[in-house]
Parts: sequence; C-alpha cells; structure tokens
Amino acid sequence: MNVVPLEGKILKENDRVAAELRARFQEHGILCLNLVSSPGAGKTSLLERTLESFAPGERVAVLTGDIQTDNDAVRLARAGFPVQQITTGGTCHLDARMIEKALAAWNLEELDLLLIENVGNLVCPSNYDLGEAAKVVVLSVAEGEDKPLKYPAMFFRSELLILNKVDLLPHVPFDLRQARANAQRVHPGIEILEVSSLTGEGLPRWRDWLQARRAALRRSLAAP
Amino acid sequence: MNVVPLEGKILKENDRVAAELRARFQEHGILCLNLVSSPGAGKTSLLERTLESFAPGERVAVLTGDIQTDNDAVRLARAGFPVQQITTGGTCHLDARMIEKALAAWNLEELDLLLIENVGNLVCPSNYDLGEAAKVVVLSVAEGEDKPLKYPAMFFRSELLILNKVDLLPHVPFDLRQARANAQRVHPGIEILEVSSLTGEGLPRWRDWLQARRAALRRSLAAP
Repeated sequence: MNVVPLEGKILKENDRVAAELRARFQEHGILCLNLVSSPGAGKTSLLERTLESFAPGERVAVLTGDIQTDNDAVRLARAGFPVQQITTGGTCHLDARMIEKALAAWNLEELDLLLIENVGNLVCPSNYDLGEAAKVVVLSVAEGEDKPLKYPAMFFRSELLILNKVDLLPHVPFDLRQARANAQRVHPGIEILEVSSLTGEGLPRWRDWLQARRAALRRSLAAP
Repeated sequence: MNVVPLEGKILKENDRVAAELRARFQEHGILCLNLVSSPGAGKTSLLERTLESFAPGERVAVLTGDIQTDNDAVRLARAGFPVQQITTGGTCHLDARMIEKALAAWNLEELDLLLIENVGNLVCPSNYDLGEAAKVVVLSVAEGEDKPLKYPAMFFRSELLILNKVDLLPHVPFDLRQARANAQRVHPGIEILEVSSLTGEGLPRWRDWLQARRAALRRSLAAP
C-alpha cells in the first residue's frame, strides 16, 4: 500500500466499520477469523479440510476473497456450508466494507463461526481490520523460514501461525526450529501449529484450537 | 493497493520517473529486469545461482527490495557483484523513485545488466513500472497451478514465467500442463522456463535467456 496522507483516512474509516462488525459478531456470538498468507500457502485447501471435518448443520460460513476468480468459492462450496466469494477487482486485500456488504446476504443468527479467507498477500491485508477475533497466518514450509522476519507486521498481528505443507519438510531446505524462533522474535507468544492439508497431519490440533476458541466465546457470552 | 483517486496521480508520477530510468538504461546499454513473485517463490535463491554463474568482472548488479530486513542483500553480496538493499519500510512494492535513489550510488557506465528483486507480492508490484525492459515472474510449483488466473495482472505484464522448484514436482499436487495453459490464457505467448535453483535443473536455459536479451540489446544499440 502507498504511504500517502490519504492512507490514514482510509484506515480510520476501515477501523470504524470493523468496530461495528466486531460488535455485531459479539452480539450474535460469532467467532470470526481472518486467514492471511502468501499466494499458494494453502489457505483454501486448509479451509476445505476444515469444512469437511464439520458435521452437517454446524453453523459455519466462509467468505473468500480473490482479486479476479471465483475458483476458491467453487471449491469451498462443495462441503455444503454457506460460502461467498468477494472479488476485489484488483484490490490487494479485503476491507471491512466488503465484509459488511457480503454479510448483508446472510442471517447472522444462523452462524457461530465465520472464516474469512483473505487475498493471498503477506503485506497489505495486515493493515485492514475486518472485525475478526483473530488473524491466523498460514505459512507453507516451501516458502522459507525467514518469512516472519521479512513480513513482520503480518506475523505480529496474527494470534496463530499455521506452518502448512509439513509433508514437504523432507524435500525443502526449511529449518523448522529457526522458523519458530523467527516467528517468536517478531511476535513473542504467538501460537504455532504444524499441519499438512494433504496428509491430514496436525489437522486435529487446528480443529481443537478452533473448537476451544468457539467454546471460550460461548463461555464469555454466558458469563453474568 | 487502494482504489482511490490519488492512486492515478501516484501511478502517473511513477510512470514519469520510470520513463526517465528507461531512457537512462537505454543510454547506458543496461538490460534491466524486474523480478516479481509471491513471498518464498525463490527469487533470492534464483538470483544467487545466477550471480554465481557469472565470471568475476561481468558488469552485473542487483537491487533487492524488502519491507524490513536486509537478509537478501547479505545473501546476494556473497557473489561479489554490487548489491544494494532497498528497504521499503512497510510499502508493499518498489517504485521508480526508490530505484532512482539507489542508482545514485552507482556509476551506470560500469553496468550492462541490472537485476531488480521486487518485494514478495503478486499484486501491487504489477502496477509500478521501474523502467525495466521486462518483468520476470517467478512461480514456485508449491504454490499451485491456478495462480496465473488468480493474479492475472502480474502474469499479463511479465514477459517470462519461471516455474521454480520443479524438484518438488513429485511431492506436490501441481499440474504442469494446466499451469502452462493458465499462464497462456492470461498472457498468450508468455515465455515459460522450468527451473530448480536447488538442483540447478533448467538454470542454463534461464542463463541463455538472459544472455540472448543482453545480446539483443547490444545489437539494437549498435544498429545505425
């Protein structure tokens, strides 16, 4: 994104809309997660596996952002849960207004988990709050262990790092320990899960993480 | 990047500076290439192998863009050719003014090949002309064959597509034929090379491509 005076104004307006979304999610007891990554880190495959793991009738929906195509929505809709494509038409990130507009088509009473797949971009989406409870950054081990240092804002703003495609570890020069250390350096305390959407390795832990967050939200809403 | 009225103004100013750079490169007989890709597609490793393949004394230099670190410049400088890091400080792409500023430190008379490694981002750098003779887009086979369709502007504006990390083909669900078809669909006639910086496969063809472009530039300058 350009560093220009207008930037601040746009971000302020985005933050305002995001705060409204956050209040609505809270009001309806919806856990909203914003999945971010480079192109090709595997967000869509991870979401496919995640949706497949839910029983029919689970109150889950997905918004998937893309610059041009609706391929991802087509893939994700196969699992039978509500899916909407947001085509940004050239814009390199989702913004809160796009989410607000897409949600107008849904009854929020019927949801308790909203997964947002952002545009594949490790830079710009880090600046745009979508009203999510947490950002989840997905990093493929094929990308290299230096990425947290090179794109620190995204890792700093994410609560969870999913190290994806760990099935490739025998075939790529990726130092898992260094990757973890780099992530902790830019974001001390960040949670890290190792998964492979291809083999299924680690997916139960991701699923447990999701369910724990949903349960925590329910408890906080039930508290007097 | 944001779609705002200011955008047009910034791009127009960038185009003006880029045109000046292009004229200077032409005047000095410098082939300038702008390497673009997702984070982790392997631009830096490819450049390391490329620099290692040049004899000492070749008139080659590299500008490498990054948001935060200077890790890439440290890696690239080992080959002994002039390397400068451009740290964008949060900005998601290089622009022509950054190139102009970096070049002030060098005598262009001493160069005939300038390789620019852009910030890892398949979206925003596509809009910023750096005065290059051509963009070269690097796509790792770990990223998936759908990427040309999802990030069409970048593939449309690149003359050459380097399919990198082909050593991983036995281990990833990547359809090489489909990837080539997708690239040709968004950019009919785009040249495509398959390489692996890890094993060296295909690097001679990339090297030949570079040398052919340098020779063509020399011929065009020598023509009456």
